[in-house]
Amino acid sequence: MSGRLAVVGLGPGDARFLTADAQDTLRQAEAVYGYGPYLDRVPARPGQSRHASDNREELARAGAALDHAASGARVAMVSGGDPGVFAMAAAICEAIDAGPPAWRGVDLAIIPGVTAMLAVAARAGAPLGHDFCAISLSDNLKPWALIERRLAAAADAGFVIALYNPVSKARPTQLVAAFGTLGRHLPATTPVIFGRAVGREGERLAFTDLAHAGAEPADMATLIIVGSEATRIVTRPGLSPLVYTPRAAVEAGR
Amino acid sequence: MSGRLAVVGLGPGDARFLTADAQDTLRQAEAVYGYGPYLDRVPARPGQSRHASDNREELARAGAALDHAASGARVAMVSGGDPGVFAMAAAICEAIDAGPPAWRGVDLAIIPGVTAMLAVAARAGAPLGHDFCAISLSDNLKPWALIERRLAAAADAGFVIALYNPVSKARPTQLVAAFGTLGRHLPATTPVIFGRAVGREGERLAFTDLAHAGAEPADMATLIIVGSEATRIVTRPGLSPLVYTPRAAVEAGR
Repeated sequence: MSGRLAVVGLGPGDARFLTADAQDTLRQAEAVYGYGPYLDRVPARPGQSRHASDNREELARAGAALDHAASGARVAMVSGGDPGVFAMAAAICEAIDAGPPAWRGVDLAIIPGVTAMLAVAARAGAPLGHDFCAISLSDNLKPWALIERRLAAAADAGFVIALYNPVSKARPTQLVAAFGTLGRHLPATTPVIFGRAVGREGERLAFTDLAHAGAEPADMATLIIVGSEATRIVTRPGLSPLVYTPRAAVEAGR
Repeated sequence: MSGRLAVVGLGPGDARFLTADAQDTLRQAEAVYGYGPYLDRVPARPGQSRHASDNREELARAGAALDHAASGARVAMVSGGDPGVFAMAAAICEAIDAGPPAWRGVDLAIIPGVTAMLAVAARAGAPLGHDFCAISLSDNLKPWALIERRLAAAADAGFVIALYNPVSKARPTQLVAAFGTLGRHLPATTPVIFGRAVGREGERLAFTDLAHAGAEPADMATLIIVGSEATRIVTRPGLSPLVYTPRAAVEAGR
């Protein structure tokens, strides 16, 4: 008797970025699992159980939700942004891959959402208007040398670069190291956008360039977009600048 | 007297993927502009004018909407998926950059949405669970040699790759050429997902591998995800397979 596990993308935070599908799924769930601060964004409903857990306990949280769903319940797991981008969907798939056969029988649905780089890009103009990539700077799960290699390859090939998980208490200096690597592959004037808590309370957007990016404050709620050599800035009197990457590419300089 | 231009992401198609923000913005608009098939997804409202245009006329459409907004109206421009990803936001910014000063005074808002790669990834599992990139295969706006260089760089660096605009009447064979390039940099067994019209009528999801990807049918409504060497497939009795890329990276083989 297998139930359903829906992994629901909450988007950037504010309810206005929720899709109708996400709202309906949360409304119908008998149990909701998630990292505490994400769970706090979901209104409590009578008869619906809530299961908050810590940020570092992704696999344990996945297992608990899968067990609950496998028992026949309609379970929702909330995820910030889009569940498929550096979030809970991969953790759930990993758990199913390594877990008991009953978990493979769970009807798994991933409900997509607006991931942070789309929200930040929307506020800034259209920096992701041409080919781009997304890189997590967390080296909990991969060697730093690999991160550096990917940064260099992306910059050389002319991708705009979205940086997720830029800093944490355990790695306060890696973001500056990443800008150093990018600075060896891109002009110092390359536009850089810092978007903190975009789409929720405390939103802050800052525009700088690669030469000065290391001096900008950043935390785990910050998403950073580093332009390519093609990225341009349009100044507007009385309005914030527009940062965009044209649809037409010129061959990159290297 | 400047009005507002909102560029609204419609997501994959079905209204259940619209955000509340997108719905409210469309409801309040006095005029709605867009490519005909996207405009058809928006219910007509009394007193709201509608301005459909052809797919190829992005800059002309941007200019008409900016003129209308600059005259003081509340104008919405609809865009498939997310406006910032190979869609209207960059065309609007280009128009403002090159256009008359009045366009810089327009209050421009980009309303983010669920872009196609997130919708396809959600249906397949979590193929974008680790570092990834998005590449448009349209060579209207960039040389094919640059596309090939980016494909090779992304594959070598271990990025999962989402391919937008894979084919058109003008370039029916380039997708096969792209798979050929990727096949020189990735194992033949690399998982490949074809998502056609995901999130709307006629949805079709197909799973294959790089050796056989050239034989899959694709059109402009198709979004393709090519895994990395780390991407895995979980088979499930009676359910479709899950394709996912683990959060933890191993150093790529090359």
